[in-house]
Amino acid sequence: MKIGIIGLGLIGGTIAKSLKERHHISAYDINKAALDYAEENQIIHKGYHDIKEFLKNNNLIYLCLYPKEIKDFLEQNKDLIINDTVFIEISGVKTSIIKEVETLGSTKFDLIYTHPIAGREFSGVSYSDSKIFSKANYLIITYERNKKENVILAENLANEMGFGKITHVSPQFHDDIIAYTSQLTHVISMALVNSFDEENVDLLNFTGDSYRDLTRIANINMFLWHQLLTMNKEALVKRIEAFEAELSKIKHALIDEDFIQTTMCLAKSEHLHKRYMKGNNK
Amino acid sequence: MKIGIIGLGLIGGTIAKSLKERHHISAYDINKAALDYAEENQIIHKGYHDIKEFLKNNNLIYLCLYPKEIKDFLEQNKDLIINDTVFIEISGVKTSIIKEVETLGSTKFDLIYTHPIAGREFSGVSYSDSKIFSKANYLIITYERNKKENVILAENLANEMGFGKITHVSPQFHDDIIAYTSQLTHVISMALVNSFDEENVDLLNFTGDSYRDLTRIANINMFLWHQLLTMNKEALVKRIEAFEAELSKIKHALIDEDFIQTTMCLAKSEHLHKRYMKGNNK
Repeated sequence: MKIGIIGLGLIGGTIAKSLKERHHISAYDINKAALDYAEENQIIHKGYHDIKEFLKNNNLIYLCLYPKEIKDFLEQNKDLIINDTVFIEISGVKTSIIKEVETLGSTKFDLIYTHPIAGREFSGVSYSDSKIFSKANYLIITYERNKKENVILAENLANEMGFGKITHVSPQFHDDIIAYTSQLTHVISMALVNSFDEENVDLLNFTGDSYRDLTRIANINMFLWHQLLTMNKEALVKRIEAFEAELSKIKHALIDEDFIQTTMCLAKSEHLHKRYMKGNNK
Repeated sequence: MKIGIIGLGLIGGTIAKSLKERHHISAYDINKAALDYAEENQIIHKGYHDIKEFLKNNNLIYLCLYPKEIKDFLEQNKDLIINDTVFIEISGVKTSIIKEVETLGSTKFDLIYTHPIAGREFSGVSYSDSKIFSKANYLIITYERNKKENVILAENLANEMGFGKITHVSPQFHDDIIAYTSQLTHVISMALVNSFDEENVDLLNFTGDSYRDLTRIANINMFLWHQLLTMNKEALVKRIEAFEAELSKIKHALIDEDFIQTTMCLAKSEHLHKRYMKGNNK
């Protein structure tokens, strides 16, 4: 198949690397250096510098843009998109994007909303690596306006890319669960890093795996995460507040020297973590 | 040298593995299975089932007990400890243990307080692995009652075990910084896990590296961590509150749709994380 990629960053580059053995991959990016890098390193077969040419020659396109750019891109290029183009987007928020795209009222294209739960603490095509998709989770949004065959196509391509579990979920469920597993974890990591700014202490001498693990994702792509946090604000704030309540329980158990309550918090954590690791439907 | 180890868990076993090529290692543990395992797997040269024999034959001993057991052990065995025994303890809290041990008023032994900042989310001698000490941080407590030559001995042994940076710090500084880098991170991980208990959702299908990294340490050794959290309660509660304040800033920036404040929180995190990774004294 001919597969196009718009936006050659970490994820766009990784999609290219994961599919290029079996498909013809072309790409468009406003960043010419990313396109040149991808061509030189044979990550893609062809780079387009002209969006018109790109859209004319591709009718199956991964849209790897930042969440806030998706609707704008579709709007600005509505006359250049050829009929029946299938777009597959890959961002970390859904309900607000769907709402924005619906305002366009376009029937020219079918946009499949998906979320590869994979990433790195670095951005850009040069960090792309097909290993990050291997066995990772992939979510496909159940959306009544999508054509069934296009959803199946997106799922088949996710399988080809090596994803592990592929799950179909509603936009609301997606945003609620991702607020917890992804956006809350980033917010926590940020707050942890932000709560220590003693300049005269070289933290590096006092940390172990725990701190390294909890702060790795604080090395954040600010522009992307600003959008992800604010566009999923409602679900995220609820998740922050549930977390704050549990943290407060532990804090007060310590302050009150409440042996039983401290033990209960520890035991709950051990129990829930084991259930998570085992997979609670198995 | 002849080196004794009391308490053959994860850390005791790792000390044995890290030193056994160059020294004669013997060990004592009330858990006979751990001793047998260590002898059978040649982790130690000799296991003692009798504490009296063990103490008679060793005058350099790593005391790898849970924090609350240290003073009790020294008290219960005060008549069996031979004069001028050097103990090196390895626990994650200091001021409260030092206070407890000082009540014994013993001059028979010299106890060097140290902290290898290394561990795993599993406990027990069978998980011991000398790799966890490699390049890890090691802290030695500055304590006026220690003999200088014994402190140097503890430092030389830490070097032999492959530790990276060895830093001398006061008990108060230790407890404050470890409250942040270790105990706070565990409390956060617990609260994160505890804030999701929806039984009908198989979380495993919706998580990526971020969630796995932030919750790995929620698989906690309850008995050890109950002691570590409660014995360093004062410093830890301060660190929890500083973290809560930063988290609250992010939450309110989101609620208020305060673009600038959200950006500032993201930028602060990126800046501080880079400073941490670089080592801010370099």
